[in-house]
Amino acid sequence: MRHTEWQFTERIRRLAPGRGLVLGIGDDCAIYRPRGAAEDLLFTTDLLIEDTHFLRHTHSAADVGWKALARGLSDIAAMGGQPRFCLVSLALAKWTDDRWVAGFYRGLLRLAEQSGTALAGGDLSHGGRVTCDIVVCGAVARGAALRRDGARAGDAIYVSGALGGSALGLATGRGKAWRRHLRPEPRLALGELARTKLHASAAMDLSDGLSLDLHRLCQASKLSAEIDTPPVYRGAGLEQALHGGEDYELLFTVPPRVRVPRELAGVTLTRIGTMRKGPAGAVRLNGEPVEPLGYDHFRFL
Amino acid sequence: MRHTEWQFTERIRRLAPGRGLVLGIGDDCAIYRPRGAAEDLLFTTDLLIEDTHFLRHTHSAADVGWKALARGLSDIAAMGGQPRFCLVSLALAKWTDDRWVAGFYRGLLRLAEQSGTALAGGDLSHGGRVTCDIVVCGAVARGAALRRDGARAGDAIYVSGALGGSALGLATGRGKAWRRHLRPEPRLALGELARTKLHASAAMDLSDGLSLDLHRLCQASKLSAEIDTPPVYRGAGLEQALHGGEDYELLFTVPPRVRVPRELAGVTLTRIGTMRKGPAGAVRLNGEPVEPLGYDHFRFL
Repeated sequence: MRHTEWQFTERIRRLAPGRGLVLGIGDDCAIYRPRGAAEDLLFTTDLLIEDTHFLRHTHSAADVGWKALARGLSDIAAMGGQPRFCLVSLALAKWTDDRWVAGFYRGLLRLAEQSGTALAGGDLSHGGRVTCDIVVCGAVARGAALRRDGARAGDAIYVSGALGGSALGLATGRGKAWRRHLRPEPRLALGELARTKLHASAAMDLSDGLSLDLHRLCQASKLSAEIDTPPVYRGAGLEQALHGGEDYELLFTVPPRVRVPRELAGVTLTRIGTMRKGPAGAVRLNGEPVEPLGYDHFRFL
Repeated sequence: MRHTEWQFTERIRRLAPGRGLVLGIGDDCAIYRPRGAAEDLLFTTDLLIEDTHFLRHTHSAADVGWKALARGLSDIAAMGGQPRFCLVSLALAKWTDDRWVAGFYRGLLRLAEQSGTALAGGDLSHGGRVTCDIVVCGAVARGAALRRDGARAGDAIYVSGALGGSALGLATGRGKAWRRHLRPEPRLALGELARTKLHASAAMDLSDGLSLDLHRLCQASKLSAEIDTPPVYRGAGLEQALHGGEDYELLFTVPPRVRVPRELAGVTLTRIGTMRKGPAGAVRLNGEPVEPLGYDHFRFL
């Protein structure tokens, strides 16, 4: 099925007309350039579905609202953009009452206010399971968006924070790791600084696990990657750090001469390797090939 | 429940910050003005859910794809805009196979091509029932978008086409009316001409039934409306024309001196009444009050 879905996505990608779009399907965001504008606009869309992405009994309504928006904001951060507004579509289930809906919006609006994201509208309906779809619009200086396809051979590879915390939290259901799973913090300030101060050549967010996401960045840039052991979240295992999704940290590359500080915008930065010429998409960890085992939720933007 | 939902929407409306938005929640589309741009951008989002908006056994995959996009395009038409691109999120059910998904995109892309709408991206996942959320972005000359709140006392009220066809089709499941229910034609050319040639003062699309939609236009413009019997689709009843939703015709008002042709962009135009001073939102049909009984799917954009 996974292979079929991938083929299908490829078909859609070929079919889609590109009029007016600087970048369509295939990166964290689509890029649209309004006529005469100084800024490019970034658009990303993310589904959050009961029993697929969250559970009714472990995720509070406010957690779900927060996370729905955080996922979209993380895509804006990955391109070095600033959020502008979001549109929120919510299909309710029979078990959701007014209190749940109010909690959902409370969580969502808290993050919206923190990040300067306006709620521009949405749709509210009824379905089988709670299904939330969020579109976030961000802005970035014209032509300056960080993309997956800009890395060059010799560029240094960096990640922010420590990886595997969300997977650990999901496995244990408690402590700081669980909180991290429930309330990811999109790296908006870091994404903007990576673009303006570090002159990052490529970037994406770590939503599906390092092994799969770095593979994708390598594919887009038509390069390979050689990495060392990445920074592992305290208590998590290497497998969780490599293949566990939903850390929402940033993965980015910088030209070899750029000096990268150990910390930026309050987040640790760690060099994990180097981009190399070689088979597009191949990732080697301490010299051994890594399979892209991260979570593939068939996302095609 | 309906009242509660309405209250809830009001609460969201008050809460939502408005930064960067010309118009937020409460019309067919949100309006965003990119810095320095000659055009305003319009955004609308619409859910289409199995068993709520369509049935697996009566609506083909291509019908669902077409309709999902048509609903969004109709909102762009209502503001006099031209479509630019769409984002499509699709949660699949267990019963959907590759063929269904291919059919969905075939239907959607046919209308996308006809209307010049690029497919900019989306998300694909799995849920309980098929749930599709579409965001359409359109563009309109700066400050020129048709809104619900621009009607003035004395303006003539017009509708395009004949009403009740979709409700008739849904009731009978056959013939041209059924086709009309399955494959609505968004009135994009008409919307643009209503804005540029007819100098329409207000407009919206008829998605939830004339009685409810005209009530909303009157509320937004803080006026009442006096109407005669509207044009009824052949074979449909007056109740279907007044309260049946999903006709996706346009409802608009024009200043009293504007000459409106009988047909524009291939669609009949009929004057159905006049905007009057009076209680905001009140609608009178042949002198009698009309209750807003149309389908309220809790939409808050």
